[in-house]
Amino acid sequence: MIRIGIDVGGTGIQVGVVDKEGRILQKGGIVTRTDLPFAEQVAQMAACALETLQRSGHTLDDLESVGAGVPGVADYRTGIIPFCTNMGWHDVPFRTEFQKHINKPILIDNDATVAGLAENVAGVSAGASSSVFITLGTGVGGSIIINGRVWSGAHGVGSEIGHMILELDGEPCTCGNKGCLERYCSATAIIRMAREAIARHPDSMINTLCDGKPEKINAKMVFDAARESDPIATKVFRRYISYLAQAIASIIQFFDPEVIVLGGGVSKAGSFLLDAVRAEVPKYILYKTLPYARIELAKLGPDAGIIGAAMLQ
Amino acid sequence: MIRIGIDVGGTGIQVGVVDKEGRILQKGGIVTRTDLPFAEQVAQMAACALETLQRSGHTLDDLESVGAGVPGVADYRTGIIPFCTNMGWHDVPFRTEFQKHINKPILIDNDATVAGLAENVAGVSAGASSSVFITLGTGVGGSIIINGRVWSGAHGVGSEIGHMILELDGEPCTCGNKGCLERYCSATAIIRMAREAIARHPDSMINTLCDGKPEKINAKMVFDAARESDPIATKVFRRYISYLAQAIASIIQFFDPEVIVLGGGVSKAGSFLLDAVRAEVPKYILYKTLPYARIELAKLGPDAGIIGAAMLQ
Repeated sequence: MIRIGIDVGGTGIQVGVVDKEGRILQKGGIVTRTDLPFAEQVAQMAACALETLQRSGHTLDDLESVGAGVPGVADYRTGIIPFCTNMGWHDVPFRTEFQKHINKPILIDNDATVAGLAENVAGVSAGASSSVFITLGTGVGGSIIINGRVWSGAHGVGSEIGHMILELDGEPCTCGNKGCLERYCSATAIIRMAREAIARHPDSMINTLCDGKPEKINAKMVFDAARESDPIATKVFRRYISYLAQAIASIIQFFDPEVIVLGGGVSKAGSFLLDAVRAEVPKYILYKTLPYARIELAKLGPDAGIIGAAMLQ
Repeated sequence: MIRIGIDVGGTGIQVGVVDKEGRILQKGGIVTRTDLPFAEQVAQMAACALETLQRSGHTLDDLESVGAGVPGVADYRTGIIPFCTNMGWHDVPFRTEFQKHINKPILIDNDATVAGLAENVAGVSAGASSSVFITLGTGVGGSIIINGRVWSGAHGVGSEIGHMILELDGEPCTCGNKGCLERYCSATAIIRMAREAIARHPDSMINTLCDGKPEKINAKMVFDAARESDPIATKVFRRYISYLAQAIASIIQFFDPEVIVLGGGVSKAGSFLLDAVRAEVPKYILYKTLPYARIELAKLGPDAGIIGAAMLQ
């Protein structure tokens, strides 16, 4: 038996035929068409899935289930997607609509959630009894996996790691709250801190890397300058690591997973990030002499979305 | 079959014979003797348990297991207690020692953890698929219950809700960290805020209730004055509710349990506290139109320790 995983994104939709061990046997993809009605978008996805299935040498009889990871809120119980802003979806019956084309079990969940599941099945946290996946990108997303299954909470609104509160009445967040974790631990936070720093210290290497245009700063520039020991970039980097370590310690204090996996754009900084985080987290751990979660970098990259979606159950 | 639950405390040890539904059939107790060696303390506990069992009209043949809730860190897997400061224990083999007296399965966990389990079996969150219990006392403790079982984490260091970080580089905590949740959500936090407030506003009713002695202030005085609409007490109360609501929202954003149960001394403020918390939490909820955890007060009171310990498995 094989499964199909669909990684739904605002610019493209990736489809994969995946075996039980999480290996991708065949891939396909279409461009996202948010200009089309929902039913039409689903019809295109299903057609792509069927075509990819055929190319993989399998038939519908071999197909166990179809899973989709969406960049929004997905109710895994009802198959309804309450919010998916990037796709222009609001309260859409994804499962029912998809089953008009492929009458198999259709599973859905949030895209960060399925990426975490993928790592837990075929990635860096494979086989862990529990893991928390944190995507460090424009925002911060995440997922919780317990005994190989996604934990989305009792109402499907959990694992919104980016919106845990890390600072009482802190930085205003796009969600309307203040002090959300993603205001301190996202790429956006690094960029904000770097802009503030170079306004006071225009001699920083960051200013050279962005050609003196603060609006062009990205997280990589800050990491690159910190790697070269630029004092201002180092200060921003140290502050970011301190925030991220406090967020990780907070998750350990509450949930104590076996593994914490860092993914998303920021995690591309690799061991420069990971080594700093691993060195900083113990400062904030409650029981300093007891074992706690190992901290790892995600390793599946862009395939995580397809693999994790296929692994939904 | 019946079970024995032992509630280990720094001043007294309560023992109960408990049926499968979480009803206490017979109670016993001894005074805590931290002056005695560990083995002797355990011998006294076991003797009390056997005597209570006998009084309940049962024999060892009826006894399924013995559970103990301890005010410290307890490793449920090994039966070892790494830290239990109130009892003067450090790395003691509780299970092995206890089994010298009663050779049955001996289960241990943290006292806040077992209180949460008790509420999930026989209290306000009975039958919930998941619940988070928060004890609001001198500090803040808690527990996580998933599908009727305690979740202490992969390394047994989880559900330390009081030491989640709620303020980056915030108030210094007794644990050595800064900004821990219990610095803002405990009775101690209410007292600290009240002392600061009456130093600036000595005309507050709080000052009358404590006879002008700030060192005598307790959380009840602040709640009592707030109930009487004293403006300073009301301000402290509102600030406390805002902090507690942000902490609860943070737990919902991360874990999304079916129920959140508030226990501990502060929860004795009853509906005055609960109504205010329920009104405040929605301000900090991410998905404001979707259902989220119901928030309740613990209802088992001092018996929770015995019942929960007996329910350990």
